[in-house]
Amino acid sequence: MEMQQLADIVWVFLAACLVMFMQPGFAMVETGFTRAKNAGNIIMKNFVDFMVGSVLFLCVGFAVMFGGDSAFIGTSGFFNPTSLSLEQFDAVTPELFIFFQTVFCATAATIVSGAVAGRTKFTAYCICSAFVSLIIYPVSGHWIWGGGWLAQMGFIDFAGSTAVHSVGGWVALMGAVMVGPRIGKYNKDGSANAIPGHSLTLGALGVFILWFAWFGFNCGSTLAVNGDIGHIAMTTNLAACAGGLTVMFFTWLRYGKPDVSMTLNGVLAGLVGITAGCQVITLWGALLVGLICGITVSLLVPFIDAKLKIDDPVGAISVHGGCGVMGTLLVGLLANYAPGTEDAVTGLLYGGGASLLGVQLLGIIAVAAWALVTSGVMFFIIKKCHGLRVPRVVEIEGLDVHEHGCEAYADFVSRIQ
Amino acid sequence: MEMQQLADIVWVFLAACLVMFMQPGFAMVETGFTRAKNAGNIIMKNFVDFMVGSVLFLCVGFAVMFGGDSAFIGTSGFFNPTSLSLEQFDAVTPELFIFFQTVFCATAATIVSGAVAGRTKFTAYCICSAFVSLIIYPVSGHWIWGGGWLAQMGFIDFAGSTAVHSVGGWVALMGAVMVGPRIGKYNKDGSANAIPGHSLTLGALGVFILWFAWFGFNCGSTLAVNGDIGHIAMTTNLAACAGGLTVMFFTWLRYGKPDVSMTLNGVLAGLVGITAGCQVITLWGALLVGLICGITVSLLVPFIDAKLKIDDPVGAISVHGGCGVMGTLLVGLLANYAPGTEDAVTGLLYGGGASLLGVQLLGIIAVAAWALVTSGVMFFIIKKCHGLRVPRVVEIEGLDVHEHGCEAYADFVSRIQ
Amino acid sequence: MEMQQLADIVWVFLAACLVMFMQPGFAMVETGFTRAKNAGNIIMKNFVDFMVGSVLFLCVGFAVMFGGDSAFIGTSGFFNPTSLSLEQFDAVTPELFIFFQTVFCATAATIVSGAVAGRTKFTAYCICSAFVSLIIYPVSGHWIWGGGWLAQMGFIDFAGSTAVHSVGGWVALMGAVMVGPRIGKYNKDGSANAIPGHSLTLGALGVFILWFAWFGFNCGSTLAVNGDIGHIAMTTNLAACAGGLTVMFFTWLRYGKPDVSMTLNGVLAGLVGITAGCQVITLWGALLVGLICGITVSLLVPFIDAKLKIDDPVGAISVHGGCGVMGTLLVGLLANYAPGTEDAVTGLLYGGGASLLGVQLLGIIAVAAWALVTSGVMFFIIKKCHGLRVPRVVEIEGLDVHEHGCEAYADFVSRIQ
Repeated sequence: MEMQQLADIVWVFLAACLVMFMQPGFAMVETGFTRAKNAGNIIMKNFVDFMVGSVLFLCVGFAVMFGGDSAFIGTSGFFNPTSLSLEQFDAVTPELFIFFQTVFCATAATIVSGAVAGRTKFTAYCICSAFVSLIIYPVSGHWIWGGGWLAQMGFIDFAGSTAVHSVGGWVALMGAVMVGPRIGKYNKDGSANAIPGHSLTLGALGVFILWFAWFGFNCGSTLAVNGDIGHIAMTTNLAACAGGLTVMFFTWLRYGKPDVSMTLNGVLAGLVGITAGCQVITLWGALLVGLICGITVSLLVPFIDAKLKIDDPVGAISVHGGCGVMGTLLVGLLANYAPGTEDAVTGLLYGGGASLLGVQLLGIIAVAAWALVTSGVMFFIIKKCHGLRVPRVVEIEGLDVHEHGCEAYADFVSRIQ
Repeated sequence: MEMQQLADIVWVFLAACLVMFMQPGFAMVETGFTRAKNAGNIIMKNFVDFMVGSVLFLCVGFAVMFGGDSAFIGTSGFFNPTSLSLEQFDAVTPELFIFFQTVFCATAATIVSGAVAGRTKFTAYCICSAFVSLIIYPVSGHWIWGGGWLAQMGFIDFAGSTAVHSVGGWVALMGAVMVGPRIGKYNKDGSANAIPGHSLTLGALGVFILWFAWFGFNCGSTLAVNGDIGHIAMTTNLAACAGGLTVMFFTWLRYGKPDVSMTLNGVLAGLVGITAGCQVITLWGALLVGLICGITVSLLVPFIDAKLKIDDPVGAISVHGGCGVMGTLLVGLLANYAPGTEDAVTGLLYGGGASLLGVQLLGIIAVAAWALVTSGVMFFIIKKCHGLRVPRVVEIEGLDVHEHGCEAYADFVSRIQ
Repeated sequence: MEMQQLADIVWVFLAACLVMFMQPGFAMVETGFTRAKNAGNIIMKNFVDFMVGSVLFLCVGFAVMFGGDSAFIGTSGFFNPTSLSLEQFDAVTPELFIFFQTVFCATAATIVSGAVAGRTKFTAYCICSAFVSLIIYPVSGHWIWGGGWLAQMGFIDFAGSTAVHSVGGWVALMGAVMVGPRIGKYNKDGSANAIPGHSLTLGALGVFILWFAWFGFNCGSTLAVNGDIGHIAMTTNLAACAGGLTVMFFTWLRYGKPDVSMTLNGVLAGLVGITAGCQVITLWGALLVGLICGITVSLLVPFIDAKLKIDDPVGAISVHGGCGVMGTLLVGLLANYAPGTEDAVTGLLYGGGASLLGVQLLGIIAVAAWALVTSGVMFFIIKKCHGLRVPRVVEIEGLDVHEHGCEAYADFVSRIQ
């Protein structure tokens, strides 16, 4: 075995493990930022995402994403993905590349659970999660990473601002709209109530875990050990910092106090935003991406919450959807770096013209349309055939007791709501 | 230094760190699934396991496991393990291989603490933990991994379903029997009460951490960078998914609701089960291993709890003992894969005959006998000379206050028990 | 690209990610060991440390630490650190080395927050944190790791007992003195009250995370894949074990019960202590370092708390300051190992004479003087111009409500204080 291949095997394995470790990150963020009475349910959803997603992506999703030469959908490798002939298989090993792709797929699926937390039937969620791993994520993934039509047009989404995060964000948006707001979220006059999470500490732990794991997500997307890794680590880190700081100062100026949970969402906003361009944007560009995504999330969260009256308990739509879109778009403006390559990619602001920006915009719109339409149909069918929402008593008393027969914190006294 | 050696150093270091990270995984699982009043005590036990185990394994355990040519017990390298001549020392470096083995030993030791939680004297536990690292784990480890008689017979336990998990499980079984059930666990009519844990969230975090760390545990057992790594990552992941899903559906069908903590144990069951055969079982075989281990744990937990009336607060006996045995046995049936090697290992169902199955069974029984007898003697002596169990008042008011003079959650109001 | 460089890139990336993961470790330790009413504030401080530190270290701190040939302070590379010509840049890549150094800087900054927890203005803390990353840490870092005067004299601080931990510890000491003790910490007769933390479990999780991350911190400081890595992992682990065990037995003998939170601090004490000499101290030496640092922290915590009447809620001064000093000093006594090199470094007890000990002592004193004077001036200016301390009502009702408008645990009933 070649030495480069040995190094690449260690590298892709390390990156894949880090990406897998996003799962507890999401679990802690989503649980910590929602009510204690639903903690067991959210945990269950996070495990289901990963368990169902891993199996279905092996059987079907990977083939849809990487099999065959169609520009629109993969057509071969069903139930036997290692039989495909992919150059990525040769670079490391088939199973290792499949493992790497599996943990990415599971990331997309898990984004949805926070947005529909606290009122969605567990069965309905399981169906939704399966559908994302089976078809929604792999098809647009094929367009972008599987050699499909967006890839052929030069669409740049290095580690998945669009392919992973915005897909998750759009499905989350559709889910939150279809299932409706939690009881007590909106008053009769239309004003919104804040429903605080039950553990800022666990939420913060989750954000730090995600930050850590994101280095695997972004740097690992090189799929090979090369000179870009340090640059990607730096852009990733700087965007996260700029995102968090921007939101901290934004909330400080606007509401008088630096808001903790919004700042944590600002970090995630920066991370989501830089994911598309982490390889081709400069260090200063990364700070700008973080800044813009920080502003995006600061404006989008209250807009969705108070104006659109869509109840997204953890801000997943704004963070993953909003900043996934913004980050992908910013590549068209800010791309100006190509370490280790001859042909640099340049965005509009660096004199590269508007064509890249146009492709980025097209990709964003196409993926949004795909994810919204398919998830819309899916949620509609679930709603009609099975029901999306738990009964009122279940929601009020908590999904843990009714859906799972458990209490997450059996030794502690809860406040009366 | 050869390039392969450089890659292997990074590899074994990475794997060892991941395995070390199982410690917080176990700590969170065991703490989260037991009572708040004993949280500090359980944490202390987890730290003692690792601290005592690391020191004793360096001084004695490693020599017992790897020193000399005896088929039954290591005989050289005491207090000076780096002086041994092992080919694994040359492959990476002596200290790195010792580090890797140390974190495996600590994993076996820590399995016991959950099963005896809530009523065992801290001193008694410390003695038990020391004894596991000193002699119980290293001797059977020598048979399997140190060139002993089971290794010579062709026993396959790639990453330790038997060597690590079932040893921990058997000692846990003996401990739980000898110390007896918690007060209030069984009613006068013999029926069992469920005693819920105090934080499902932390328990879930622990399971996700263990899942993440398990990739180091299983993949790292190659001890070298090679083409098997991706395959092992996939089998490990798929067995975990299948184990969790199986238990989820099992509890759903049997009890009417998908049970959270049992599902989490199902994930661990799949992980424990695939550990022996992760390298030689196919991807589909891994799903089957997960399925069978999921059923195993679903049946074994209520059997041990309600029928045998053995109080195992976290299900450690079923998960590590039961699925460790089952996974080791399944290698004899399902082995049929040998990436990168000439001579494939084949189990009974793939036409390899029953001889491997027989060896697997022999190894399981021998290790069970060894661990049960030695730990039985150990617990008996502790019980007679020192006492295993805390006084009634300590158990009722909590081990934290009486054994450690602390409260784990000083700012929160507890429910009256 | 050379194969050694490929391996080193993976290596330094892995180490840097592990060091970054210290951030949630510190966050959980500091939050878990303090009051629930301030949890959100402490989390915010941990995020600010990393966000502000990353940006300022890129712009200024890195240049101060590594730019130019002055023995006292770096002079070039401001706002453009990749323009410097460093051999470390060639060994991996410029950005990767900067990333690695950034996460070290952030570690120093975050040490302070625990010592001043529960009564410090958030704005004051932000200024302090910025100042550490901008100037305090980089200047002494330049002396030690940037080719400055201490490096030229042969000062040994392999991974930063002095450069990182004691700097953090000295600033923490100055901060705790300047801001004064928490309300209720000391009685009128001068006796001290223990103020228990709100989650031993999260504190323990944090310590385990730090332990895990420390393997990146210490082993990664080789900056290249080589034969020392296993040795460093072993010394790091053994010192942690010895530190924890020493404190456990110390508190057991002295107070009658093995203390949980002190034992956890003992683990950290051993880790901090071995950091300077992890490469040049033998395995048995590492156990001795852990033992001595365990005793150090066991004596220093009550001394600072009860005698000096300095209120350090999490023991950061003793752990990072005290054991950082002790560990650096012990290199001068115990150094006797140099795997893979021709010229071994030997300390006094191994016949190397007192010169190394003298240099170590000089370095300790110089860094202490630098950190204490600069942070003293800084805290004095903040105190006079802005105020260090929150008003009495804020402290009593909690910083979360007043400084951030949130509650960390909105669903649980708190005990009346």
